[in-house]
Amino acid sequence: MSILVVGSVAFDSVKTPFGEVEEVLGGSATYFSTSASYFSGVKLVAVVGSDFPDKHLDSLKKRGIDISGIKKVDGKTFRWKGYYDYDLNQAHTLDTQLNVFSDFDPDIPSAMADSKYLFLANIDPELQLKVLEQVKSPRLVACDTMNFWIEGKPDVLKKLLKRVELFVINEGEAREFTGEASLVKAAKKILDLGPNTLIVKRGEYGALMFNGTSVFSAPAYPLEEIYDPTGAGDSFAGGLIGYLANSGDLSDDNMRRAIIFGSVMASFNVEAFSMGRLGNLTNEEIRARYYEFKKLTRFEEL
Amino acid sequence: MSILVVGSVAFDSVKTPFGEVEEVLGGSATYFSTSASYFSGVKLVAVVGSDFPDKHLDSLKKRGIDISGIKKVDGKTFRWKGYYDYDLNQAHTLDTQLNVFSDFDPDIPSAMADSKYLFLANIDPELQLKVLEQVKSPRLVACDTMNFWIEGKPDVLKKLLKRVELFVINEGEAREFTGEASLVKAAKKILDLGPNTLIVKRGEYGALMFNGTSVFSAPAYPLEEIYDPTGAGDSFAGGLIGYLANSGDLSDDNMRRAIIFGSVMASFNVEAFSMGRLGNLTNEEIRARYYEFKKLTRFEEL
Repeated sequence: MSILVVGSVAFDSVKTPFGEVEEVLGGSATYFSTSASYFSGVKLVAVVGSDFPDKHLDSLKKRGIDISGIKKVDGKTFRWKGYYDYDLNQAHTLDTQLNVFSDFDPDIPSAMADSKYLFLANIDPELQLKVLEQVKSPRLVACDTMNFWIEGKPDVLKKLLKRVELFVINEGEAREFTGEASLVKAAKKILDLGPNTLIVKRGEYGALMFNGTSVFSAPAYPLEEIYDPTGAGDSFAGGLIGYLANSGDLSDDNMRRAIIFGSVMASFNVEAFSMGRLGNLTNEEIRARYYEFKKLTRFEEL
Repeated sequence: MSILVVGSVAFDSVKTPFGEVEEVLGGSATYFSTSASYFSGVKLVAVVGSDFPDKHLDSLKKRGIDISGIKKVDGKTFRWKGYYDYDLNQAHTLDTQLNVFSDFDPDIPSAMADSKYLFLANIDPELQLKVLEQVKSPRLVACDTMNFWIEGKPDVLKKLLKRVELFVINEGEAREFTGEASLVKAAKKILDLGPNTLIVKRGEYGALMFNGTSVFSAPAYPLEEIYDPTGAGDSFAGGLIGYLANSGDLSDDNMRRAIIFGSVMASFNVEAFSMGRLGNLTNEEIRARYYEFKKLTRFEEL
């Protein structure tokens, strides 16, 4: 079953303690699609400017991603510039240029309107709602957001969440959105808004899933070097939803496996800038790291 | 097999978002002993002042702890005063009065000198070394420390670590001690100093164990309310070493179980001030929470 993702395709300029890159391929939908493509078909809807090179489109196509929903329009592609200090959980933004993204009005091609798995990457919740209205009868609607929308459009976000099954956000955002210091309380409040599953991303500390009856704690993979955390959250979501879409199984047991695959993909992603590692994986590497997570967390009954 | 612990027995005054207590029973050795007493015999060596009430000694005795090594001397008992904001990972110290603790010169009673399990709670590493020299042939030497000694006496600490098997410290301290932002690199450097096992405590994010061949990630228990984090690290160590001493099994598999029991005890401890919860547990409650950790982390093979 293939996934429809709507989000950003962008140029990133990033500096970390391990190096610096200028205008490399980035964006939430790019990271998500590349990650999900190892598990499932992906249809990508986004907008880029006339400066967006074909080689990037080709690299997405090579991963089997359906890019017919990427619109190329006059103007410049969305750009983000930022850096990370040694605390790699914290991105510092230096510059955001929305460019062609500021007029983005997602129009879902009719061939994609019957997608069963939908991921609304982090964009304006008004646009996320607009996309949702164009998709006929999705089986799973998942979305992400960020503090900017939590602060600026909390009511639209709440309206959206009524129609979302799986909500994926950062720990700090969960606290900010609910005004609760306790993550357990924050999760209850968020589940009350609509989603039946909440996944809280905690960077180098892994992820927590809440679904009202069960809590799952997944670690992050302890890497010797994290070269660039950019896109870790979207790579996580890509592995997660990719695995769910491929298996078609939304049970608690399978959600846990999917979260581990999300963590696996995020752990590969941070090993290089841009798609340096995420774009060149083998199924064997992915499977082997899944088992590394098993070893990492294993402990026996008494 | 019983454990010898040397550390502080103190009065704590603590304020958290959930309440405030004045001069309640605290101290690293108190938390450690109370926690370990559910698993193993414990002999406690410490010093208190003439203001230390018998009721506190009685409550330790009731838990089966051998308090014959607690020396009562003229003067006032060690006092710590601090508070926590909503970030419960961070203790803010308002006042530390060493009092009788400033002249503490631990003299291990000869009946305790053949202890096989030794926990050197966080005190001056010179004193930790002094204790170690008095214990004949321990099977497991474990120790804790803090940033104050890492900054003030790094060389003494390094000398101590050559003779320590199991080293338990906080995440921030592991980074500070080694000058490595990467925890994986920090762990390698610390293991090179002597210990064969390092456990890094990460507060509400759980704990990571490194032993050179295997890494284990344990979550913290997601509690709705954390009333008071004081003593969480020592309760963790108590459950950990208590379980190891009781089973006599230092294998990787058993170390993982022990870390979960440490996490279980820490999770109970933070549910109340002082020994409010840690002092009144049943074996059934402890066992049940162990299985809660199993549910929390469980995911299946593919």
